[in-house]
Formats: sequence, C-alpha cells, structure tokens
Amino acid sequence: MAIPVDVTIPVMQQIMKIVTDKQIVVDAGSTKNVLCKAIANYPMRNRFVATHPMWGTEYSGPEAAVKDGFAGRACVICEKEKSDPKAVEIVENIYKDLGMHIVYMDAEPHDVHAAYVSHISHITSFALANTVLEKEREEDAIFELAGGGFESTVRLAKSSPAMWAPIFMQNRENVLDVLNEHITQLRKFKACLEKENMEYLYELMENANKIQRIIK
Amino acid sequence: MAIPVDVTIPVMQQIMKIVTDKQIVVDAGSTKNVLCKAIANYPMRNRFVATHPMWGTEYSGPEAAVKDGFAGRACVICEKEKSDPKAVEIVENIYKDLGMHIVYMDAEPHDVHAAYVSHISHITSFALANTVLEKEREEDAIFELAGGGFESTVRLAKSSPAMWAPIFMQNRENVLDVLNEHITQLRKFKACLEKENMEYLYELMENANKIQRIIK
Repeated sequence: MAIPVDVTIPVMQQIMKIVTDKQIVVDAGSTKNVLCKAIANYPMRNRFVATHPMWGTEYSGPEAAVKDGFAGRACVICEKEKSDPKAVEIVENIYKDLGMHIVYMDAEPHDVHAAYVSHISHITSFALANTVLEKEREEDAIFELAGGGFESTVRLAKSSPAMWAPIFMQNRENVLDVLNEHITQLRKFKACLEKENMEYLYELMENANKIQRIIK
Repeated sequence: MAIPVDVTIPVMQQIMKIVTDKQIVVDAGSTKNVLCKAIANYPMRNRFVATHPMWGTEYSGPEAAVKDGFAGRACVICEKEKSDPKAVEIVENIYKDLGMHIVYMDAEPHDVHAAYVSHISHITSFALANTVLEKEREEDAIFELAGGGFESTVRLAKSSPAMWAPIFMQNRENVLDVLNEHITQLRKFKACLEKENMEYLYELMENANKIQRIIK
C-alpha cells in the first residue's frame, strides 16, 4: 500500500478484516506510529509488514520511477516481532532484490528519525520556495541566476501536497519539535548578522560542517 | 581574483594602484556592491571587470573542479559601463568559452538577487545541519536513514566558512531581509501544524509548487 498516509489507515483497517493467512499486506508510508497503533488489535495483524523504503524524489507516479533508485538505501521495518516471520522474510527479500539494506526500528523512534532526516527537509524546501516567490518579484532573475545550490535546496518544494500534507500532520508532534529547533538555529544566524558577530558566525558554520562526517 | 570577499577589497585597492592599461583585473566573488563602491574612484577603475559566474559546489580548491560545471549557467557582469569595452569583451569570451551566458546587472540589484538565489540557500542548509546535529543524538540513525532529500537540502552545509561568512556579512542587509521572510514562512507551517489546519497547509504547499515554473 503506497497511498497518502491519512487514507492508509481506514483502508488498512478494511484489509485487516479480509486478509487471509495466505496473503501479506505491506505499506511503504513515511509515518508508522499512528498506523501501527490503528491496527494493533486486529487478529490478522501478523499478516501486515510495516515498511519505509527511504528513497524518493520530488516527483510522483509511475513515470517518476528511476532505475536502481533504491539501491544502497535503507528500508526500515517496524514492529517486526508483530509480523509473521515468514511474511517478513518474503518482504525483506523483495527490498533486498532492489539493493536495499534492512534496518529494524520501533514505530515511535522511526517517526522521530523520519522527522529529522526527511520531513524537515521538505518543510524547509517548501518554505524556501515561498520565501523566494513572495519577495523576489522578478521571476526572470531567479530563472536566469539560480545555480546548483538553489536548485538542490528548493527541489523538494515541487513535491506533492497530497502526499506530504498528511505526513506532516500525522507526525506533527515530532515535526513541530524539529521545526522549532530549526527556527531557533536560523535565529542564531540572524543574530550574528544583526550584531555583525563574525566569530560566532564562523562557529555556527564550522559546527554545521560536521555533517560531512555523516553524509557523503 | 577568487579569494574571500572581505579580503578582495583591500587587495583590489592595491591592484588598482599598479594595474596598467595592458592588464585586466577580474573578480569572481558572490557580492558586488561593496567592492564596486570601494574602487569606484580609482583612475584605473576601467581595467576592472566585476563578474559573478553563478555556479559552484560545496567543495573548495582546485581538486573540486568539475568538467563543464559552468556550462549552461549565467555569468553576471556588473557595472559594465565602467569597464573598458575591449576588456569586457575579452572577459566575456573567457566565460562564453566555458559555455556560460552573460547577464548584465548593476551591483546593487545583483546583491539582492544573489541573496535570494544563493545566499539564503546556504544559510538554511547550515542551519538545517545544526538542527539535526543538535537534536538527533543518534548519528548512526542519520547515517543509516538519510535519503536523497536530506542530502540535497543539507549538502551546502559542507561549504567553507572562510568563503561564506564574509559573503553573508558583506551582504547582510539583503540576507537579513530574506532570512526574516524565510522565518515568517516557516512560522506559517508551524501554525498550520499547531492548529491542525490542513486546508492552509495544502495552500502553502501548492503555492510552493509554483517554483517548478522557474526551476527545472
């Protein structure tokens, strides 16, 4: 099941009523906590495998497929112990065939981590697009001048609202936590510029450079 | 001259005292207004061509060169009328040989546009890295889970503080304008989540989607 996460829940509850022990249901949504709770008490819960293959682009639909896009990326499986072991094995093999490696995680920590490594990037990108569209009235100038840096930070703003609005809303507590921290961090840059504090500005940027330890 | 923009100014003032009419001085910095003002009254001003080739990566130094990186990108030339026409022609041909197209602009509007299409992207990326490093204590989780979206929004955070801190500081008024607007836009997302206002959330995201009209 790869549909917007708000409709996943009622549809999955329907499926839980009709699924047999010869069938497996898998979801691929970006949030896991609300969904796992919503179906926790169905007798056929063990036919469901909760997964989150961690890759995507800003484009949706079959025509957005990219050959080997998932290769080398992580696929999270949540609440593995609540699923039938044979079902988990079959699902894992599908993802492994795509070149993914499997990471096990409970639904709650999954949603916290997803807020950090995925959801906040989308919010900042949507907000950055709105910032530029609001203030930069000369669209030709953006069009002419935008280099690789702008494109990469703003490309997620092309993502589907129908897919992402329900994700943000379903994971709103974690996303709000991260968003508040992000606004705090931006205010530090603002304070440096207002006070012309070059030393602290350097410090903030050198700290940010540490991210190269953890991403390629 | 391709050195940090704060030291460009005193060095360029030295050069203005010794440059001859058989020589051309070119800079490639990301800010133009302060520099152009600082050398406006030197008799040899017309030997200087103010340029900004709009492309780069998060990496610095000769080993960061990318074949054909500049091809298809814009190179801004500022205050063209203050430079010797023959000097401008020679410089333009160098950039055209790299596959760039030339855009003419005054120094002040250049700095405003640069704040929108380049400087703010770097600040949001640095701040996003600090957000994640501050709150996400499990670095292994970032390392394992970070997908393409996170990488693209945070990659500029690997950029050199020695290069970027002087750019932000020299263009601080424009950058502060954009940064204030960006914080306002982020607060709108925050308000949507706090009030569970799905309708307004959709509206914000659909507006951001308009960016696809102006970037590829």
